[in-house]
Amino acid sequence: MDAERTEIGTIGEFGLIAELTKDIKLQNPRTVLGVGDDAAIVAPPPAGKQTVVSTDLLCEGIHFDLMYAPLKHLGYKAIVVNLSDLCAMNALPTHVVVGLALSNRFSVEAAKELYAGMKLACERYKVDLIGGDTTSSKSGLMISVTAFGEVDSDKATLRNGAKAGDLVLVSGELGGAFMGLQVLEREKHVFQEAPGAQPDLTGFDGLLERQLKPEARVDVVEELSKLEVVPTSMIDISDGLASEALHIASASGCGVRLHEDKIPMGEKMYETARAFNLDPTLCTLSGGEDYELLFTVPQDHFEHFKNHPMFSIVGYLTEDPNERTLITRNGMETELKAQGWDGFNEEH
Amino acid sequence: MDAERTEIGTIGEFGLIAELTKDIKLQNPRTVLGVGDDAAIVAPPPAGKQTVVSTDLLCEGIHFDLMYAPLKHLGYKAIVVNLSDLCAMNALPTHVVVGLALSNRFSVEAAKELYAGMKLACERYKVDLIGGDTTSSKSGLMISVTAFGEVDSDKATLRNGAKAGDLVLVSGELGGAFMGLQVLEREKHVFQEAPGAQPDLTGFDGLLERQLKPEARVDVVEELSKLEVVPTSMIDISDGLASEALHIASASGCGVRLHEDKIPMGEKMYETARAFNLDPTLCTLSGGEDYELLFTVPQDHFEHFKNHPMFSIVGYLTEDPNERTLITRNGMETELKAQGWDGFNEEH
Repeated sequence: MDAERTEIGTIGEFGLIAELTKDIKLQNPRTVLGVGDDAAIVAPPPAGKQTVVSTDLLCEGIHFDLMYAPLKHLGYKAIVVNLSDLCAMNALPTHVVVGLALSNRFSVEAAKELYAGMKLACERYKVDLIGGDTTSSKSGLMISVTAFGEVDSDKATLRNGAKAGDLVLVSGELGGAFMGLQVLEREKHVFQEAPGAQPDLTGFDGLLERQLKPEARVDVVEELSKLEVVPTSMIDISDGLASEALHIASASGCGVRLHEDKIPMGEKMYETARAFNLDPTLCTLSGGEDYELLFTVPQDHFEHFKNHPMFSIVGYLTEDPNERTLITRNGMETELKAQGWDGFNEEH
Repeated sequence: MDAERTEIGTIGEFGLIAELTKDIKLQNPRTVLGVGDDAAIVAPPPAGKQTVVSTDLLCEGIHFDLMYAPLKHLGYKAIVVNLSDLCAMNALPTHVVVGLALSNRFSVEAAKELYAGMKLACERYKVDLIGGDTTSSKSGLMISVTAFGEVDSDKATLRNGAKAGDLVLVSGELGGAFMGLQVLEREKHVFQEAPGAQPDLTGFDGLLERQLKPEARVDVVEELSKLEVVPTSMIDISDGLASEALHIASASGCGVRLHEDKIPMGEKMYETARAFNLDPTLCTLSGGEDYELLFTVPQDHFEHFKNHPMFSIVGYLTEDPNERTLITRNGMETELKAQGWDGFNEEH
């Protein structure tokens, strides 16, 4: 993987940390002290704001496969999935701290690649990387990220504030990340059966990027603020549209009705799903990892969103908390089921 | 290990999280929203205070050995080592978020034991557990903890503020955690050679507790505040007295002289080291994991500390940044060397 390979043992834990953190750029005026001491120091948020905190652990073999996830992309994604959780609270990200556990299979250069991706995400999202822990592991790579953000005290958006009648909206297009994963898995199998084979990923760039280098919808949070809309509930789509819509309905004590023909799908996702003999709708409902935002707003906001290029109105909430309906393209009603990814059940 | 064993797969990731977090008690008035949504929400600290953040990753086989670390103790320790980092900034802990990766070797009951220890530490230290991520791992157990605290803006204590002439102090006694580990390792080897043998841990309770269930010196931070002393530098002793004293000296651009006869050692630690044919002084200098606080104060604070039961004055800082001296009991000068634990070098 590396042209050069320096064993981590030759520079030690402190040497590695120094190497990884030496060129970190801090840009948030609230950062008082970044990496290098026992802890980082952050000044309080501006008046009227609260701090929002989210944490995630990513494990090799469970959340990523290094056979096709380049380390730099992986570092980028590790940061982004946490920022996405903050966006789902209607908050804007400000800081992250990062933990890294590496087995001796990883070189200094590999750790630097991973950090390069994390730093890139931090620059892109104007987030300060203020703390870290780097250690060895007995096997494999683990990344833990804790992200902080700020939100106006009266605009923090939970999952449980939706009301019957509220419109259900999603940002962007769904299913792309899942189809990107299918393409990568196919090429991995081809490669495993014929190790000389070159992977054929031509034309799938968009889908691969959705899977390997997703983005957090900070722009959606900013757009909602511009529209002066505070959603009644919000969640990010990590496990598929069905699972997340049911989370919101259940937390808010409502039922939900989604319209299949309103679910936003990209042309390439649709075509590729067909070519793989997969139902494109199922890819959006159960695929996950799109990191789009799913939110609800009262019906009287309809005018704001009906032709907005960033959003699709995919359904609405109902009174009956037991209702979970998908209205198909041909007008049939079927049960909306959460079949999202659950690592413990190996149901992927 | 468990009388009962429920596979995590039978209740799934969401079921496990619900089970682990159902009885979390929140006691900090700044906690606006705890676990259960995309992120937690925390109100700003009181006026004049800053937020302090620290993160740690603990990996099975590197930082702990489940052959002798009971899961409940391990959970407790995982929280405490992070709170200790906050104390080292002269801050008081307020919140934690926790990430847990478990292989299918672990049952629901095992995860609950681990969480019971974490919750116990949170109650003991009046810290709110406000967020978590629980996931599966391909092998072993990993725990990531990120801890938050608050400190008066003018009292945050870094490593780099010490001056030549400053006194070097430590809280409590050193070497106990390291000797506790030696006792556990000895019994592990006995057990591995004769699996029927019962471990002989009688009389080592104090040392074992230092290793398995350390405490964070929040009381030291409170005492310093009572004494109206702000240390010029501070660090917690995770890697041994020598390594930490050199960190402070080097960050502050000073040299350091420590007196062997001033290093605080417990009687049991001393005797046990002798019985194990180990140099007790070396155990304190290089042993680590005591989580006591090492700090510096100007000499004019001498009166505050000279007979204080909580502290020992172990040396002082000097002008020459190359000086790193240990004055032995018999008045000889030897080089103070950092031989603390470094996972990547397997030097333990």
